[in-house]
Amino acid sequence: MAAPVVAVVGGGQLARMMAPAAAALGVHLRALVEEPTSSAAQVICDSRVGAASDEAAIRALVAGSQATHGRRSAAPAADTPEGVSAEARAADVLTFEHEHVPNALLEQLVAEGHPVRPDAAALVHAQDKIVMRRRLGELGVPCPRWVELPDAAALEAFLAQVGGTAVVKTARGGYDGKGVRIVRSVAEAADWFAASQADGGSGIPLLAEEKIPFTRELAVLVARRPSGQMRAWPVVESVQVDGVCAEVIVPAPGLDPAVARAATVLALEIAEGLGVTGVLAVELFEVPGTGGGAPTVVVNELAMRPHNSGHWTIEGSMTSQFEQHLRAVLDLPLGESTARAPWTVMVNVLGNGLVDPVDALAAVTALDAGAKVQLYGKSPRQGRKLGHVTVMGDDLTEVRARAAAAAAVLRGATSR
Amino acid sequence: MAAPVVAVVGGGQLARMMAPAAAALGVHLRALVEEPTSSAAQVICDSRVGAASDEAAIRALVAGSQATHGRRSAAPAADTPEGVSAEARAADVLTFEHEHVPNALLEQLVAEGHPVRPDAAALVHAQDKIVMRRRLGELGVPCPRWVELPDAAALEAFLAQVGGTAVVKTARGGYDGKGVRIVRSVAEAADWFAASQADGGSGIPLLAEEKIPFTRELAVLVARRPSGQMRAWPVVESVQVDGVCAEVIVPAPGLDPAVARAATVLALEIAEGLGVTGVLAVELFEVPGTGGGAPTVVVNELAMRPHNSGHWTIEGSMTSQFEQHLRAVLDLPLGESTARAPWTVMVNVLGNGLVDPVDALAAVTALDAGAKVQLYGKSPRQGRKLGHVTVMGDDLTEVRARAAAAAAVLRGATSR
Repeated sequence: MAAPVVAVVGGGQLARMMAPAAAALGVHLRALVEEPTSSAAQVICDSRVGAASDEAAIRALVAGSQATHGRRSAAPAADTPEGVSAEARAADVLTFEHEHVPNALLEQLVAEGHPVRPDAAALVHAQDKIVMRRRLGELGVPCPRWVELPDAAALEAFLAQVGGTAVVKTARGGYDGKGVRIVRSVAEAADWFAASQADGGSGIPLLAEEKIPFTRELAVLVARRPSGQMRAWPVVESVQVDGVCAEVIVPAPGLDPAVARAATVLALEIAEGLGVTGVLAVELFEVPGTGGGAPTVVVNELAMRPHNSGHWTIEGSMTSQFEQHLRAVLDLPLGESTARAPWTVMVNVLGNGLVDPVDALAAVTALDAGAKVQLYGKSPRQGRKLGHVTVMGDDLTEVRARAAAAAAVLRGATSR
Repeated sequence: MAAPVVAVVGGGQLARMMAPAAAALGVHLRALVEEPTSSAAQVICDSRVGAASDEAAIRALVAGSQATHGRRSAAPAADTPEGVSAEARAADVLTFEHEHVPNALLEQLVAEGHPVRPDAAALVHAQDKIVMRRRLGELGVPCPRWVELPDAAALEAFLAQVGGTAVVKTARGGYDGKGVRIVRSVAEAADWFAASQADGGSGIPLLAEEKIPFTRELAVLVARRPSGQMRAWPVVESVQVDGVCAEVIVPAPGLDPAVARAATVLALEIAEGLGVTGVLAVELFEVPGTGGGAPTVVVNELAMRPHNSGHWTIEGSMTSQFEQHLRAVLDLPLGESTARAPWTVMVNVLGNGLVDPVDALAAVTALDAGAKVQLYGKSPRQGRKLGHVTVMGDDLTEVRARAAAAAAVLRGATSR
């Protein structure tokens, strides 16, 4: 057999961080990237420029036979066992680093015999929050109270029902806090209603959720193979700032072991129940127990791909989420997913004006020779995820402080 | 500043394994590869085909301005801060994954202002064993007794001096046991003498070394920056089979702490003494102490690049030798180089007929979900280094057995 070929839709940092795992496994990675200079295109040689919504681009990505932007497109194929270069071969599987792919096309590809993982039937739950909430309800998974919002009257009624504050979301297309708004009146969502009802109601549907009085946010990352094998990483605490992940602490400090087990079982049940293949991130709210009981968890969001809450696994676990995702979509046995250190903390490096974190490589290691830096090769822009830092150790307070200090240096703070 | 550009000569697995480290640091890697399908060319997008002995190819690699085989050669440069794509920029530094580069050219490049690390003055000690032995002698570094072999008479005399057995080596071009032969008579080296004296004595010179009665082979890997900072990884035991590294055990089991310290100091002194920049591997013989004293070490070989004895660092140390090499040649502060587990064992996967280790990915992880596999994307060929396996744990016997079993599966053994 020749090297397995994995085609991935998307050219961001998630596809980029699949590249080292693919190289280690001898897997040929092929990416559909937004631009020739996209984050992933810098490190995935077989990158092809095209839109995730472009049927022809996706088909070419899967087929592999079409002319490619790849360096080796004109290369002699003599070194491959069966005489066909990896660039020219059809992908063994199509996967994703984001959910913005037309589902009808994915169904067609599967019907034509091309494995798509996760498949359209699973992926829709990460694409459409109404479908997700409906299905999680059927599975008996704890969720916030929620309601579809066909019109403003529905929000009016829901606000009355949940005590005056609701979280309004667009069913599709949101990420990093976009497409989410906390409202106390219909007026505060008027623009979204107008947009959703545009073109005779063909806009993006809305839903409203009760605002959960959570104590903190947790996340569980699991991976599942088509053959059913699953593995989970430890439950993490995810600290969000303005709807964007800022810090991930592994394991979630002080988490009741029973709650950790329950959260993990929940994530595995969701992966199984939705038929997910690949990595699934389940974002949770931790809610205080009633009457002195143990806390409980409520599902906030799902993502069916490597996720920011799992970046710590690159150095912090024996198997990174990126390797595990490749393993899962290729239906290879999954690797060990325990944490390698008592405490691991990951801090995102968000864009700070025109500061380029690559300029701080010397300063950050001079400050902390044990801080692991991952940069994404992106142009600096305010608030953009440009990289992250991971620190491991025995003392949580120290590990958090080190990770924060290293990230600050990468954002341009002057080190000591 | 834009991403630093590191140009590396060579397209084998050592350059390949620099790619993940470069991606993490946001460093642009550019490789001079033997073929479009070379191991490194599969994962380094800016790979250019050419010979290490070709001045024009090396100059183009450094200059970056020339047309490239790179995918992004025709890409718009809009996303780079200063409007020049990384492919088109001159390299910030030239480095190597092997020593077979013309030294005169490297000296010219330095004279023209292009940093070359390690530089020609250091690299010559890894290129020419006669120069190396002479210089190590000057530095007072313990070496085997040795002699240059201008003619057969010199070997005759040396054999008499060392008790009848000598190790004859070609001064240049040897690796993995090639260019090394144990002889008991001049006749056994007759063909080499003929070759070395060919063309009026312009062939490759020979030297002879005493055969050291070593108990085992050790290796010390260190890294040194141009500014002088150095870091060492723990001393390892290297198990050789037929002159090829088969297994590396970290740390070297049962090694007298004083000997470990002495070996580390020796390696650091060599790095300093020879002015090495980048990673330096010092291969050592451990020799029993005389009169009940502690064992001593004797220098066998040097390599000025990432080395097989350091592959364990990818998962086994906080900073891999590949990341450290990039840091060192870019004169960035060096990362932590301690071992992450009590025991780490690396076993090479050598070619076994036409068995392709990629076909055993499922079997090896089914056998051992904690065994870390690194494959090199090479066509199978008997005895060729196709990949390696690393296993970490608390019990050495178990870790060695697991690593051996995983490597055996990748070589085609049927797993249980």
